[in-house]
Amino acid sequence: MPKISQKGLRMPASPIRKLTPFADKAKLDGKKVYHLNIGQPDIETPAGMLEAVKNIDFNIWAYTASEGTLSYRKKLTEYYNKLGYSIDTQNLIVTTGGSEAITIAMMTCLDAGDEVIIPEPFYANYNGFASQGDVVVKPILSYIENDFALPPISEFEKLITDKTKAIIICNPNNPTGYLYTREELEALKTLCLKYDLYLLCDEAYREFCYDGREFISPMHLEGLENNVIVLDTVSKRYSACGARLGCLITKNKEVWTTALKFAQARLSPGMVEQIAGEAAVDTPNSYFEMVNAEYRSRRDTLVTALNNMEGVYCPTPGGAFYIVARLPIDNADKFCQWLLESFEYNNQTVMLAPATGFYSTPGTGLNEVRLAYVLNNDDLKEAMVCLEEALKVYPGRTN
Amino acid sequence: MPKISQKGLRMPASPIRKLTPFADKAKLDGKKVYHLNIGQPDIETPAGMLEAVKNIDFNIWAYTASEGTLSYRKKLTEYYNKLGYSIDTQNLIVTTGGSEAITIAMMTCLDAGDEVIIPEPFYANYNGFASQGDVVVKPILSYIENDFALPPISEFEKLITDKTKAIIICNPNNPTGYLYTREELEALKTLCLKYDLYLLCDEAYREFCYDGREFISPMHLEGLENNVIVLDTVSKRYSACGARLGCLITKNKEVWTTALKFAQARLSPGMVEQIAGEAAVDTPNSYFEMVNAEYRSRRDTLVTALNNMEGVYCPTPGGAFYIVARLPIDNADKFCQWLLESFEYNNQTVMLAPATGFYSTPGTGLNEVRLAYVLNNDDLKEAMVCLEEALKVYPGRTN
Repeated sequence: MPKISQKGLRMPASPIRKLTPFADKAKLDGKKVYHLNIGQPDIETPAGMLEAVKNIDFNIWAYTASEGTLSYRKKLTEYYNKLGYSIDTQNLIVTTGGSEAITIAMMTCLDAGDEVIIPEPFYANYNGFASQGDVVVKPILSYIENDFALPPISEFEKLITDKTKAIIICNPNNPTGYLYTREELEALKTLCLKYDLYLLCDEAYREFCYDGREFISPMHLEGLENNVIVLDTVSKRYSACGARLGCLITKNKEVWTTALKFAQARLSPGMVEQIAGEAAVDTPNSYFEMVNAEYRSRRDTLVTALNNMEGVYCPTPGGAFYIVARLPIDNADKFCQWLLESFEYNNQTVMLAPATGFYSTPGTGLNEVRLAYVLNNDDLKEAMVCLEEALKVYPGRTN
Repeated sequence: MPKISQKGLRMPASPIRKLTPFADKAKLDGKKVYHLNIGQPDIETPAGMLEAVKNIDFNIWAYTASEGTLSYRKKLTEYYNKLGYSIDTQNLIVTTGGSEAITIAMMTCLDAGDEVIIPEPFYANYNGFASQGDVVVKPILSYIENDFALPPISEFEKLITDKTKAIIICNPNNPTGYLYTREELEALKTLCLKYDLYLLCDEAYREFCYDGREFISPMHLEGLENNVIVLDTVSKRYSACGARLGCLITKNKEVWTTALKFAQARLSPGMVEQIAGEAAVDTPNSYFEMVNAEYRSRRDTLVTALNNMEGVYCPTPGGAFYIVARLPIDNADKFCQWLLESFEYNNQTVMLAPATGFYSTPGTGLNEVRLAYVLNNDDLKEAMVCLEEALKVYPGRTN
């Protein structure tokens, strides 16, 4: 029998999904499971986007240009220029979801053995994408006590070697919800220019910033044009995760030209999605106002409930729709599995993502979990009652 | 300024698209260009598939399971079992086009530095996918004089080293249209079992076999279950290239489990496409009868016209919708560019793909071109008149 590749053996299975079999069993036991473990929003996709799909008017479902249709890229340019990115259609490559934007950017910047620095906890699939290219992830710890702010630049400098080619940040952050400040981005700019590093910025959650706080992109920073690659997706912005429509943005012509070669190999992004994506740019502001008000209210529900529980702490995130909370537990993996397998309160339980899946440094995140606020406030309140009761009786409680 | 990766520098640009700027110029000159260079069919997508898109009935465009929806995988199982593949839903992973099926299969089987043997000429993007994984392609020549049949097994054996992990074939073949026989596949089976090699079979053109010839898949061969990975797509079968919907099929559980880890990293294939793909399986036979009759007639138009030209030769392909022809020319790249830039007949010209792009061995394919019969018979006849006239006056004509 032929052997699987070492790459395949090293490839991490999805940490977010590893509890799914236990969740399925919980359902079979008749328990109601509140799913706060994955980032699939319950918010409706804008009607205009779905209408565009229903109104398709072609007879041949054809390839588009590898970089995306000119029409969609023009429309995207409008969207980004309203945000002050100052780009044109030749700065964009349309991708199959944010995932493909990340893999293409990584292949463009990093060879096997090269190193990328990522503040942790970080989006778990960065590990998977790095494994695909035999790229080495150098994690750098951020701390819950500090709201998961950017680690000091001196800590980055300690990790830089001649193999270091890039830094990846996610802003607002998944899993912490942290929103980077202008000062933090300026500090990263100085660092990237000093060491000639790419700055890959995953902005999947750009639309979700709370409390009137300003969203700053490295695209806004002068002098960093050759270093910045923004990775984006419509998944969260329009609650359209299943559209698999994203894009890569760069003002570095060599990066764009190289990224296009990778895009050409896979021929084309989806045609119907680009039609839908074009319509999505015209989504009225009222949609985002409604969605932001809803998420903010859910965030407040969770933050209040969590911080009212004995021994629990979480910061108040400035963006995205995630919270990382510290719990009085021995081991988040065990606790999350126990919630599904061995606990119920009023025949209900809650599914959380152990934060261990978002840390790359062994032994970190053991007493942290990520909660995605993708359910309505009533459900969130019920879920928090479950969690509070669970913590009272969990055998591995630590204080 | 940060440096592009070596991977990116090595990555081949699409050979099929490199003439596009000259074609655009030809259009600007007011010449009509017959595009026989790319595999974008002019055949309509089945109405049922497009209706399924127009009739979507959901409010949240959500992720699906990483391996594809159970509903679509069930339907696909029906389709493949009618072909005698004897699979269940756990043998399938739904992918973003055939392209992703190929990259996932390659990552599952091959590490950086590993070798894959591919009979050439071959689908040019295999080179790109190999570059992405730093995999080494070992080409093995097939010959136009022999209809591009499978090279002798002894030639494969000469190339096998301890780094050889897999063989890739495309059946029916792009670019040659060659349809492999049962005997050829049995010979590959013996070889793969002897050396513990994976057999990756790209079956994008399965539906298009002519003259009553039988399509044989390695899925039909007993005893090869652990070695075979079939790579498929709806692109050509339903003329739905822009749907980016494919799948990977394997009976090797370890391959399936590992491939799923790569699929999980990118989260999900497209949701709307899977709905459309499910409807597509119910496409009536009359559609395929119509399409096959059309393609066969076009093939005959081209084969007859080409072989009637002085100094030109092409085999009669058993499948797909491509022909590789040998022309009395010095250099196919130059000739194809000259057709666009410097030639016109009745204010028309023709765009062909130089076969050099499908060969990996330097200096091969110089007097061959690939023609895709994706235009109607009248246009094909006009295009062949252009080609015949062009060959009469081309300055680099060789005999």
